[in-house]
Amino acid sequence: MLQFVHDQLSDDEVAAQAEQFTPLTQSVRELIDAVIRTEADDATIAAARADIERVVASLSERQMPGSYGMRVSTSGTARAWGNVVMGLRNPMAPPLDIHRDADGVSTASFHLGAAFEGPPGLVHGGVASLVLDHLLGHAAGFDRRPRMTTTLTMHYRRKTPLGPLQARAHIERMDGTTAHVVGHIAEPDGRVTVEAEGTFVLPRWVRELEELSGDDGPRFA
Amino acid sequence: MLQFVHDQLSDDEVAAQAEQFTPLTQSVRELIDAVIRTEADDATIAAARADIERVVASLSERQMPGSYGMRVSTSGTARAWGNVVMGLRNPMAPPLDIHRDADGVSTASFHLGAAFEGPPGLVHGGVASLVLDHLLGHAAGFDRRPRMTTTLTMHYRRKTPLGPLQARAHIERMDGTTAHVVGHIAEPDGRVTVEAEGTFVLPRWVRELEELSGDDGPRFA
Repeated sequence: MLQFVHDQLSDDEVAAQAEQFTPLTQSVRELIDAVIRTEADDATIAAARADIERVVASLSERQMPGSYGMRVSTSGTARAWGNVVMGLRNPMAPPLDIHRDADGVSTASFHLGAAFEGPPGLVHGGVASLVLDHLLGHAAGFDRRPRMTTTLTMHYRRKTPLGPLQARAHIERMDGTTAHVVGHIAEPDGRVTVEAEGTFVLPRWVRELEELSGDDGPRFA
Repeated sequence: MLQFVHDQLSDDEVAAQAEQFTPLTQSVRELIDAVIRTEADDATIAAARADIERVVASLSERQMPGSYGMRVSTSGTARAWGNVVMGLRNPMAPPLDIHRDADGVSTASFHLGAAFEGPPGLVHGGVASLVLDHLLGHAAGFDRRPRMTTTLTMHYRRKTPLGPLQARAHIERMDGTTAHVVGHIAEPDGRVTVEAEGTFVLPRWVRELEELSGDDGPRFA
């Protein structure tokens, strides 16, 4: 069931693909926003639908069988471009641009627009948990090994408005290979809106991928 | 900041809009999937991008200023068509088709495709929390009054594969107007993959909307 595809692309070929897909993905992000917010007349909407269906047909003529999964280039660099939070080819990803500082704190600045709405004008609480699940998981992977969530507890402290936001997470303590992680989302002025704590473990498929990739181990990009 | 727009549409006009936007939204859902999975050549991808940018420009010529928010028709029926989980006009919504049975149990059958991926071939843990946050919130709104999450705890029991899934939630107990709710996601054969428990409270904006809408109160559609 788990997909690790060694697609025999060089890092240069991967970079060329990234250059092609980044603007395509961004244009679909803008389309999602436009579909939610448009006040166009019926004829414009019907024409838009016909155009989109034609694009879908052209892109679907040649496609991979399942989901994007994890693809590994000839250099051993793994990429998860379909990932719903980070994926370079996933228009649903905000995307989250995560940085890890020298102290192991993972931070991200991001923008959540109309497509992430729950209550009027506010970020859906479940989107906050999607972002924090991913960011806490990133902090848990301090040693470049992805860890999976076993428990996650969210505390909603106040409303999270749509717009620019920041988030951070760090490991509170390790228990063997299990990471106990805390984090939060805040408004640009630093006011925390949501806090989270979670436990993250090393799954079997990571160890499998490490074996597949040889002595050096994979690098997750 | 909170948006309640009385847009003076009749229920018939709302139904006509739904008929226009449902297929447009579905076509963008298929586009998201196609962008993730396509193996088209460079020229096809460049053409797709140009086409999509043209559609975005046509739809954006006339658009509402912010997010969709909550719009109320002349009959008092409120709709949240931009909602990230349920929204009729949000291509990111799976969407979730939720039913409430006579005993107050909220259930949903849904399909999560390539766009919801976390680990290879699996649903992102944060997507599971997005779905359960919304479904538990639905169960908490048994009296047709939306309640907001204050705490949510997720327990990841096993992998959740991409594909057809089901979920259910019910109130375990009430504490004044605060609802304590439990729920889970399961594979089609009933095997539970993720469990959740949460507390949900009645927010101020619901009481404001109830005052705006007069004696009958709003109906959330």
